[in-house]
Amino acid sequence: MTLENAWPELDNVLGDRVTRSKPELVAHGASESYFPLTLPEAVAYPESTEEVSALVRICAAHDVPVIGYGAGTSLEGQAQAFSGGLVVDFARMNKVLEVSQADMDARIQPGVTREALNEDLRATGLFFPVDPGANATLGGMASTRASGTTAVRYGTMRDNVLGLEVVLADGRVIRTGTRARKSAAGYDLTGLFVGAEGTLGLITEMVVRLHGQPEAVSAAVCAFDTIGDAVRAVTDTIQIGIPMARIEFVDAASVAAVNAYSGMDMPLKPHLLVEFHGSEAGVAEQAESFGEILADHKGRGFQWAVTAEDRKALWTVRHHAHWAILAGRKGARAVVTDICVPISRLAETVEATQADLEAHGIAGPILGHVGDGNFHAILLFDPDDPAELDRVKAAADRMVTLALKMGGTATGEHGIGIGKKGFMPREHGEAWQVMGQIKQALDPKGVFNPGKLAPDAK
Amino acid sequence: MTLENAWPELDNVLGDRVTRSKPELVAHGASESYFPLTLPEAVAYPESTEEVSALVRICAAHDVPVIGYGAGTSLEGQAQAFSGGLVVDFARMNKVLEVSQADMDARIQPGVTREALNEDLRATGLFFPVDPGANATLGGMASTRASGTTAVRYGTMRDNVLGLEVVLADGRVIRTGTRARKSAAGYDLTGLFVGAEGTLGLITEMVVRLHGQPEAVSAAVCAFDTIGDAVRAVTDTIQIGIPMARIEFVDAASVAAVNAYSGMDMPLKPHLLVEFHGSEAGVAEQAESFGEILADHKGRGFQWAVTAEDRKALWTVRHHAHWAILAGRKGARAVVTDICVPISRLAETVEATQADLEAHGIAGPILGHVGDGNFHAILLFDPDDPAELDRVKAAADRMVTLALKMGGTATGEHGIGIGKKGFMPREHGEAWQVMGQIKQALDPKGVFNPGKLAPDAK
Repeated sequence: MTLENAWPELDNVLGDRVTRSKPELVAHGASESYFPLTLPEAVAYPESTEEVSALVRICAAHDVPVIGYGAGTSLEGQAQAFSGGLVVDFARMNKVLEVSQADMDARIQPGVTREALNEDLRATGLFFPVDPGANATLGGMASTRASGTTAVRYGTMRDNVLGLEVVLADGRVIRTGTRARKSAAGYDLTGLFVGAEGTLGLITEMVVRLHGQPEAVSAAVCAFDTIGDAVRAVTDTIQIGIPMARIEFVDAASVAAVNAYSGMDMPLKPHLLVEFHGSEAGVAEQAESFGEILADHKGRGFQWAVTAEDRKALWTVRHHAHWAILAGRKGARAVVTDICVPISRLAETVEATQADLEAHGIAGPILGHVGDGNFHAILLFDPDDPAELDRVKAAADRMVTLALKMGGTATGEHGIGIGKKGFMPREHGEAWQVMGQIKQALDPKGVFNPGKLAPDAK
Repeated sequence: MTLENAWPELDNVLGDRVTRSKPELVAHGASESYFPLTLPEAVAYPESTEEVSALVRICAAHDVPVIGYGAGTSLEGQAQAFSGGLVVDFARMNKVLEVSQADMDARIQPGVTREALNEDLRATGLFFPVDPGANATLGGMASTRASGTTAVRYGTMRDNVLGLEVVLADGRVIRTGTRARKSAAGYDLTGLFVGAEGTLGLITEMVVRLHGQPEAVSAAVCAFDTIGDAVRAVTDTIQIGIPMARIEFVDAASVAAVNAYSGMDMPLKPHLLVEFHGSEAGVAEQAESFGEILADHKGRGFQWAVTAEDRKALWTVRHHAHWAILAGRKGARAVVTDICVPISRLAETVEATQADLEAHGIAGPILGHVGDGNFHAILLFDPDDPAELDRVKAAADRMVTLALKMGGTATGEHGIGIGKKGFMPREHGEAWQVMGQIKQALDPKGVFNPGKLAPDAK
């Protein structure tokens, strides 16, 4: 069957809000990553759970794939329609439905972006902490189990989604979780749909956890001679129990790119950037204690700052890194890959990755969330040189092989999509087949996001 | 089929470590709660994953139910063999296999108790924080998604289990999770088995997250005129971002019981007990800030303490409460029930519960984890008076009805077992059928813990 058979029914339910116009297909066929433009057959803009349920029933009846779409910022092809089908864009389901200050939670539609949510929360004294960098939608962030710089303190989407409304492959609508903070009542379905990349259902509503805006924030930056010194400073800090809100690592190549891009002259060494959230006295004490630990690990040029302006200056290197690195080579694109390893193996993993990239002549600055053992390499390639893309992808594959050898995972936060599906059997062994059994149980016809994450239907 | 058919094979694999001796069956047939003694058909003490896999294969082949057993401290009948079958006691799989200080995690067997784990960790500066009260096994705590007094700061078992080894219903052995702190690689199988109460598989190994022992601890206690005042003080404290490690509520009836039991003379009012973990200066600041919030909510008799001895005195009321309440009525037993509601509804839920118990002439002191919105009622009954047990169970049922009406859950931490299974359709609606689909997919013959948690096989 094809979309053609489903079209009259879709048109009947959604009218103008389902389209096959070429610009719409193109807009939903691209990727921020290296995957080729791949047009879906149609794009829908539902406005309600009922519409999502209806369109899923129609597509299921006609064997049309259904692919959820948020802001299109995922990095492993999660939102691309590689098997054709209908892309469901949640742009019109973007309302903050309810904020409870006492419960410190919000009920929202999946198309709300994290910046929009935080804008909405500004007057409440609360905020939503998960920050993957891009201004992604919360539905997309839940689906890819996003995290980012603040995960070391506030957790990932796994920790910050309390409940979901989900449309299943047969059109049924379920609710998972409650407004209670915790529950021991049955299987953790919320946790099952978070990170499922839209292969088990479409999220149509969510309850997310909010946090109090800190009374005070301090930030610090420090250079190190070696990555090992930087990582050891972080493990000491964690063990001593200094509660870091962010702890980021940038390598010397990233610093060089930012120096060139932003006219700075930071020393060409690995750096740590850290942020503390708490009371006035608390963040001052934390920054000072951190400074003492740094001294034990040959940290150099330690600076700390509490004013918003000074903090912003300190964080420039991290905030500009992605664009600075891309700007460092004219016309280049990048494979942005991420792996996550036990923190005890982080230093050697970063060092081995740098050595491997150098040996293969690949420009790939490294930066990441050192408190989680999660780091990114931004592997540059010339989009007109397929051979270079192949070399870069091979390097990214070696990074994953290394991560698995270290007892880590193929991806800390970018997810699987199609980009890392080949590693699933190696990371999970027989457990990947169990994922397949769950996929088969909940989506036996393979309606949702076919070809991604789960084993292909037999 | 019956155990009789499986016996020769079980005996062949386990020898002396599988038994049908009456004292063993009796020891594994009782409950800490109100469920009647129910003997299993046999008890096994495996010593390895291979043995667990072998016994599951044998039992599956002969349709013999398999029920995991830790310390037998669960409260909703989770470990009782109500359909007969083989109880698998993990007492001999109780080794701490590996502790990584740098990664702040431990690889353990499921029969390790939380006290044994913390004893083992004493010299490392690390500890495992989840504390449900009883000295449960970690495998049992994972299976019931246990939490307890420290969940407000350190999370529940959901947050502190990083990975599992699990034996499935067909004897396959899988590993979920990695040693990395986070992952976006596929469905969260770890989260699926945590809280599944042994209905999807048997946990044979686990990686748990450890935390740094705090440099300093301070504790405080305070009385209030009303529960509403106490709860509002807590919500203010959370919103301001004062990081409480424990925040417990005891009602006036609990205080009365402890006064009688321990020869104390605390005022007969609701009390909050709180503990702060951090640096020396940090915990002092936190206790002082908390004191200021209390003053805004008519808190009375605020005391705080930092020495271990003084803290212990402050916590006496909480630590003695359970036994003090039971001792308050000679020969009584108790239905210990728990519900969890959004914190904005906690005060009215506690008040309505107290009024309901009083109206029905039931003695049921209330205490709990106010930071999570989770509280317990210890409903006393005479074990020789079945009518009183029925009245007490009816009261517990009304508590759940109230919790669901408030947007909460039937259980914050005790789980479902058979005791709360009747509420699953009401709490989850169609989502409970989805749990049934998962159960069917992973355990189609219903080998594991039949009759518990999930919908009965059709």
